[in-house]
Amino acid sequence: MIVSELKSVVGAKGWIDDPVELQPYVTEWRGRYQGQARLLVAPKSTDEVAAVVRVCANHGVAIVPQGGNTGLCGGAIPDSSGTQVIVALRRMQQIRKMSADDYSMTVDAGCTLAQLQKAAVDANRFFPLSLAAEGSCQIGGNLSTNAGGVNVLRYGTARTQVLGLEVVLPDGEVIDGLRSLRKDTAGYDLKQLFIGSEGTLGIITAACLRLQPAPKETNTAMVAIDSPDAAVQLLSAMREALGDSLLAFELISERAMRYVLRHIPDTRNPFEKEYPWCVLLDCTTSEGAIEQALHDTLENGLILDAVVAKNSAQAQSLWHVRHSISAAQKQEGSSLKHDISVPVGSVGRFIEAAESAVLAHNPGARIVAFGHVGDGNIHFNVSQPATGSADDFLLKREAIADVVYGIVAEFDGSFSAEHGIGQARRQYLDKYRSATELKTMRAIKAALDPRGIMNPGKVL
Amino acid sequence: MIVSELKSVVGAKGWIDDPVELQPYVTEWRGRYQGQARLLVAPKSTDEVAAVVRVCANHGVAIVPQGGNTGLCGGAIPDSSGTQVIVALRRMQQIRKMSADDYSMTVDAGCTLAQLQKAAVDANRFFPLSLAAEGSCQIGGNLSTNAGGVNVLRYGTARTQVLGLEVVLPDGEVIDGLRSLRKDTAGYDLKQLFIGSEGTLGIITAACLRLQPAPKETNTAMVAIDSPDAAVQLLSAMREALGDSLLAFELISERAMRYVLRHIPDTRNPFEKEYPWCVLLDCTTSEGAIEQALHDTLENGLILDAVVAKNSAQAQSLWHVRHSISAAQKQEGSSLKHDISVPVGSVGRFIEAAESAVLAHNPGARIVAFGHVGDGNIHFNVSQPATGSADDFLLKREAIADVVYGIVAEFDGSFSAEHGIGQARRQYLDKYRSATELKTMRAIKAALDPRGIMNPGKVL
Repeated sequence: MIVSELKSVVGAKGWIDDPVELQPYVTEWRGRYQGQARLLVAPKSTDEVAAVVRVCANHGVAIVPQGGNTGLCGGAIPDSSGTQVIVALRRMQQIRKMSADDYSMTVDAGCTLAQLQKAAVDANRFFPLSLAAEGSCQIGGNLSTNAGGVNVLRYGTARTQVLGLEVVLPDGEVIDGLRSLRKDTAGYDLKQLFIGSEGTLGIITAACLRLQPAPKETNTAMVAIDSPDAAVQLLSAMREALGDSLLAFELISERAMRYVLRHIPDTRNPFEKEYPWCVLLDCTTSEGAIEQALHDTLENGLILDAVVAKNSAQAQSLWHVRHSISAAQKQEGSSLKHDISVPVGSVGRFIEAAESAVLAHNPGARIVAFGHVGDGNIHFNVSQPATGSADDFLLKREAIADVVYGIVAEFDGSFSAEHGIGQARRQYLDKYRSATELKTMRAIKAALDPRGIMNPGKVL
Repeated sequence: MIVSELKSVVGAKGWIDDPVELQPYVTEWRGRYQGQARLLVAPKSTDEVAAVVRVCANHGVAIVPQGGNTGLCGGAIPDSSGTQVIVALRRMQQIRKMSADDYSMTVDAGCTLAQLQKAAVDANRFFPLSLAAEGSCQIGGNLSTNAGGVNVLRYGTARTQVLGLEVVLPDGEVIDGLRSLRKDTAGYDLKQLFIGSEGTLGIITAACLRLQPAPKETNTAMVAIDSPDAAVQLLSAMREALGDSLLAFELISERAMRYVLRHIPDTRNPFEKEYPWCVLLDCTTSEGAIEQALHDTLENGLILDAVVAKNSAQAQSLWHVRHSISAAQKQEGSSLKHDISVPVGSVGRFIEAAESAVLAHNPGARIVAFGHVGDGNIHFNVSQPATGSADDFLLKREAIADVVYGIVAEFDGSFSAEHGIGQARRQYLDKYRSATELKTMRAIKAALDPRGIMNPGKVL
């Protein structure tokens, strides 16, 4: 009966119940999480989302909100019971309002990130959120997971981009909070609850987003250094010299570079020799200003070598190295990935401590550390020993995670910098967040979703 | 008995119970709100705050957290029952950790804003939060009210400056969330709940704050224009030309300028004649870049005249005009003040509509509109008619507020941009926020503070 009620809410084109057609929506894109769904509904308006939620609430049936299904923690995949209903936002993809003078846009949750980036450019504005899945991920999912990406150093995470939200609550009521306000102290800032809570408190149906002036120019440089700590010091010196014009500041280890050069066609070492570490940076000041700033840091011995891209082809070639690390590492066998963050100033000491600890128990393992050092967000990946069984190595997943996350905790860091919790990391949330924090999170969940129908089994 | 328990928690120097000595703490600084307190305690550590809260919770006694007592809505003033306990943070004012490389600092809630600005400068960093009360307001209060101020255009409100918080919950448990992380998706972002909730959900005892690179230079200009809408268009054009180097962008009406020149010594009109409106801007690009950007906008007729400060004395003289508006307006008799925000792109239409509506019913009233146009935050003040009784005019307080806030609501704005709700504006929260929003706020309050002991009678 619930199925027919839901079907009538969304109309003939708004649902899928055939198990074969449902496959792409109940399967995580890498195949790591596989669930079943009673039904997928794809409402085409906020009113329809609200009506769907009311039907599910009446029947006590669980809802799994779903955007582009590009997440890495299984947060958008239903459980295996076959009783849950997927609410997909993909038919809601209008840009409701583009306000160039206001530096804002109001958009449906189902818009893809790339669609929004393009809409901003068309209005001579810049929407800074940018990440690998941008062609297919949806802004509703980006906000629900407080996505990070490459421009966080300069513009903050997804949360920072939000001026207002429209949200369907677990009882089907709608918070119409699409206010485009830079300052608003009228009561609790409710939108903050729904950003980063992975659909467990409500369904984001639309957002009013902050736009930025389009950068006049972006220049790129790669700088060789001798340690991650030198990267942190260089970042500090470059921020002093160039202010907030730094957009991205990415760390690449010698091993990561070597794997890229070994496995990825059309890549080359921008330097004349191998260096232990390098940093890739994007900056909105002139090429000359970057060169001057790098020159000024030569004195204190931080820099071993540096290349400033002379044109966009050279810039792309430098970024190609960075973007190819994951693909290159795959060619070296199995690897265990840890998306962690620590205070920016502690990145160097963290990498050193984590590497020692992992190697102490896994002598042949190969650490590939790289990522957003400007945000303190390191992808601390561990490749299997060059010789030996992949399966044996993968058995160490939990043991190695415990070692890495234990050291993250010593540095007051996070075991999940930008990927969220979903169904993948609940055990770590229980372990690495205090009883008081967990109790408070559960109190919020119970207050907003007392029947527990909104994405149950995720986060908490 | 509760009094002796509390006294023993904080020790001999940690409390005040003498009604005369309590006066400054139970009186709002302008004298608008007057309460009574059973006791003031000033704990000197987070443990003491937690112990105080546990004692109060056990006895079911209400707590009023208090910072520098500089608020404008009575949020830190107890009620008149004489039963409430003030918890003042003023003895907690250590900078716990200054991390220049990490661009962060961890500080006690009782530190004054000026103390933190200075600590940042001493570390060659910049803490951008800045507002009139900075000499005496405390960071705990700034965060509890999500303070705004003059640099919001570039750096965001107080919320944006926060990396982590330590909070004592209404049951006396402590959330130790002082993580200095730029990215963290490990569960709900609890700190967001306590920022801007005015001490109704817990007591902020410490914060980890984001620091910025110190701006190399700041230049100041004043530009004459013919309407608020021209200010918005100019802002848009200047952001396109200068990117995010604009720190402040303030609107001043002809009447505001005239009152300043009339009443405030050592002020002068920077232009050769009177213009209907002008804009005061601060920018971190060079004087030459500002001049070029202004020159480029001459073509489209936005600008009537412009002055770029040639030195810091000239810049101070321009800012002196802006800072003197409130004092000058006071000399013109009683006035009713409205701290409102609307979408930046709507500021021009809002001012026009609100002015017409107020004058329709109050023909002699004199509108003095000015403020942070770059944030859509206008101080829409209404001075009494030049002739007539101040008392008669003040009787119209509610009627005029209804007119102004009604028009704010038509523009999807906020009746409280940066001053909060406190005890002053609860009626407007009820009126201008939806039943669903209010219900959700109350659910959060009930979940975190089921006994309602934390700053009762404020906000909700």
